[in-house]
Amino acid sequence: MPFDFATVTPAIVDELAAMLGSHAVSADAAQRDQRSHDVSGHHARAADVIAWPQTAEQVAQVLKFASDRRIAVTPWGAGTSVEGNPIPVHGGILLSLERMNRIVAIHADDMQATVEAGVKYRDLNRQLEPRGLFFPVDPGGDATLGGMLANNAAGPKALKYGATKDNALAIEVALCDGRVIRCGSRSIKQSSGYDLLHLFVGSEGTLGVITQVTIKLAPLPRCVSAAVASFGSVVDAIQCVIALKRSGLDIAALEFMDAGQVRMINQVEGMTLDARPTLFMEFHAPNAQALEAELALAGMVCREQGAVSVRATADPAERQRLWFARHNAYTIATRVHAGERFLTTDAAVPISALAALIEFAQAELAQRSLAGYLLGHAGDGNVHVLLPYRDEAGYAAAQAFNDALVEKALNLGGTCTGEHGVGLGKVKFMRQEHGDALDVMLALRRLLDSNGVLNPGKVLPVEL
Amino acid sequence: MPFDFATVTPAIVDELAAMLGSHAVSADAAQRDQRSHDVSGHHARAADVIAWPQTAEQVAQVLKFASDRRIAVTPWGAGTSVEGNPIPVHGGILLSLERMNRIVAIHADDMQATVEAGVKYRDLNRQLEPRGLFFPVDPGGDATLGGMLANNAAGPKALKYGATKDNALAIEVALCDGRVIRCGSRSIKQSSGYDLLHLFVGSEGTLGVITQVTIKLAPLPRCVSAAVASFGSVVDAIQCVIALKRSGLDIAALEFMDAGQVRMINQVEGMTLDARPTLFMEFHAPNAQALEAELALAGMVCREQGAVSVRATADPAERQRLWFARHNAYTIATRVHAGERFLTTDAAVPISALAALIEFAQAELAQRSLAGYLLGHAGDGNVHVLLPYRDEAGYAAAQAFNDALVEKALNLGGTCTGEHGVGLGKVKFMRQEHGDALDVMLALRRLLDSNGVLNPGKVLPVEL
Repeated sequence: MPFDFATVTPAIVDELAAMLGSHAVSADAAQRDQRSHDVSGHHARAADVIAWPQTAEQVAQVLKFASDRRIAVTPWGAGTSVEGNPIPVHGGILLSLERMNRIVAIHADDMQATVEAGVKYRDLNRQLEPRGLFFPVDPGGDATLGGMLANNAAGPKALKYGATKDNALAIEVALCDGRVIRCGSRSIKQSSGYDLLHLFVGSEGTLGVITQVTIKLAPLPRCVSAAVASFGSVVDAIQCVIALKRSGLDIAALEFMDAGQVRMINQVEGMTLDARPTLFMEFHAPNAQALEAELALAGMVCREQGAVSVRATADPAERQRLWFARHNAYTIATRVHAGERFLTTDAAVPISALAALIEFAQAELAQRSLAGYLLGHAGDGNVHVLLPYRDEAGYAAAQAFNDALVEKALNLGGTCTGEHGVGLGKVKFMRQEHGDALDVMLALRRLLDSNGVLNPGKVLPVEL
Repeated sequence: MPFDFATVTPAIVDELAAMLGSHAVSADAAQRDQRSHDVSGHHARAADVIAWPQTAEQVAQVLKFASDRRIAVTPWGAGTSVEGNPIPVHGGILLSLERMNRIVAIHADDMQATVEAGVKYRDLNRQLEPRGLFFPVDPGGDATLGGMLANNAAGPKALKYGATKDNALAIEVALCDGRVIRCGSRSIKQSSGYDLLHLFVGSEGTLGVITQVTIKLAPLPRCVSAAVASFGSVVDAIQCVIALKRSGLDIAALEFMDAGQVRMINQVEGMTLDARPTLFMEFHAPNAQALEAELALAGMVCREQGAVSVRATADPAERQRLWFARHNAYTIATRVHAGERFLTTDAAVPISALAALIEFAQAELAQRSLAGYLLGHAGDGNVHVLLPYRDEAGYAAAQAFNDALVEKALNLGGTCTGEHGVGLGKVKFMRQEHGDALDVMLALRRLLDSNGVLNPGKVLPVEL
């Protein structure tokens, strides 16, 4: 289906304003520019008009309006994506959820919250803290819940708490035929009918727009501790990850950093960390005794697995120091490469293949003479290589590296994206990764978006 | 779409035999009768012919054959469902996965196994035990992995380990257009394209037939313990469930039994349990110190919540004794009602509404003068009432009770089925539970099964 979208004329803008109110529609250039890019290096493109609906019914109205007139419509949350996911590459309407930012209900006894899609998870967590609860998925950026659902965001604590898709119980979705449907329920266990919820979660706004969600919350951990262990080789470090997981420890976060990254942090911050492959661990426990048991076991496993050094603490200040390098790795890399942009890879593989993937990445970086900082959610087999670049040639080189990395990850039984979503940049890998299943995905998209107006250009390779 | 299926003629049987080999096709009455019912009270119905394909490609061939000729085709695993899910109510072909029972690979370092759909989880667990691993979803019956996926089975340990759908990473699915597709990957984290895996899981063979799966495994717990606590009221017991969950304890199983059920067990088994609302807990820990920490905290929470008695143990024999009543509740009920059948309800609600649902069930049983044994996966808000009956009138009365219970559960924000699936018995609740989302489900079914031959009569109310 070709992308021959209708132009947004002043009459269209007026119709939208009549539908939503003039305060809820803008063709202002500054407003549009602000929402023309995410945090990735994908080219900015401004939409022609922004709409800020305030109810699910209004979202559905805008979608139907756009579909009937064949106008591209791209949902927008906070613009914190890293793969161009919310860039309105075909112009048209930017459907912003920014004003649907109401916390509808906090069900403290159920450890659930019902929120509109435009709520930011950090704002939600501020509201939840006095109740001893939090939403544990922490992707880093100041994302909205709607954006996190659309991209199935994750982050380091997905190891213990799951990704966004594991923490969604019920959603409200606006469809482009103008209907608003509800999928799932507030019951934790559900085996009723088809799992539409997980079809919409991760579909990046290409099948419908999630307007409200009921998420699972977790109790704020009473006790938190950290451990850091360094190893003689990448293989040793990843073998330790396997041993830690097989021990039955319920680790909150288990992160990997390679020797080059540690060395860079030592240089920039004047630190004296062991410049070796390093694991960072975080533990959440309901009481001090359980925490001590976990730390003791983790330390034992690390030493058994040949760790060169192991440091563990239950002290909050010392914990901050231990995790300083991991917490600030991204910021430090951006400071070192001030003025440059970053391409961030997101391949993920079975843990048994993680050492092979990391060593492949290191060898490719060396062979291609590329700077690259390697950070991994090791417990989940997910690796990010941060690749700084200055210009189009640098961007192309970074892309070529990612192509090779994804190829390797797929051959190792993995995926091109663990938590960033497909967006613009990974559309090209979909056929190789999914084979004939891609045709089923395409058929589903045609079924739910017959005019092809929902976030066009994203996720699936719709042939031009 | 009307159910005007084609008749299975001897010529059809011959064609199937030519396709699969004569050893893989049978119209034998005894064989067909054996596979004409599950463990529910739904009426038995034999298929006209059984096919035992041995590869995914053969499954797809049979599906395409059936679809092209408009012959009903019902997938079969072990027949341990409890809602009529695999009964071939429209005759036609019974597509048995029984001979696809190969363990393809055990990825011990990844804690994953790849198995064909006909593998039974208990057989798998016997293979896994020497490696210190197990598949933690334990629905009770001797189910196949394919059946567990199709119905999204769960069981008591879903509290810690999740339901089947939470433990599936990749599936191979045969479609009725003859294709075989692969969904998901062996990476734990996945945000690549649409989540087709969760669309097929729980669809009870109405969208395609799962032929192979890669599942997550868990380390066999080094230390296991149990605790039992009794309470003055249902409300107190459920408040304690809430407090236990909010404490941050990672409880493996948290089960509820009502006073009537305990009293019955005392009578039948000559035991002297406290005939009160009772919670049964199980804990899995990686070492003794962690286990002690959990038991101590659980005991404290129970006492704070006003438990009348709390007993806890780390001793295996004593643990068996503590859990005897819970482990044997179903068997004891069937012994007491020898010769009767059971209807088992499966509604689930948010935990905050669980006491209300239980009290509603108790009041309705009393008002309707029905015998009913109430067992709950309390930690997940899932309640089973076992309703014995002798005849059609008794069955109708049990059904009427379930109708009322489901109505109540839906009003409390819950679902008609937490873990048994929709099968035949809950089709009638789908419109009320899902509203307009049901139309999207129906459209998906038409898309993937245009001739309506896949497990007809199940899950969705396809109008006659």
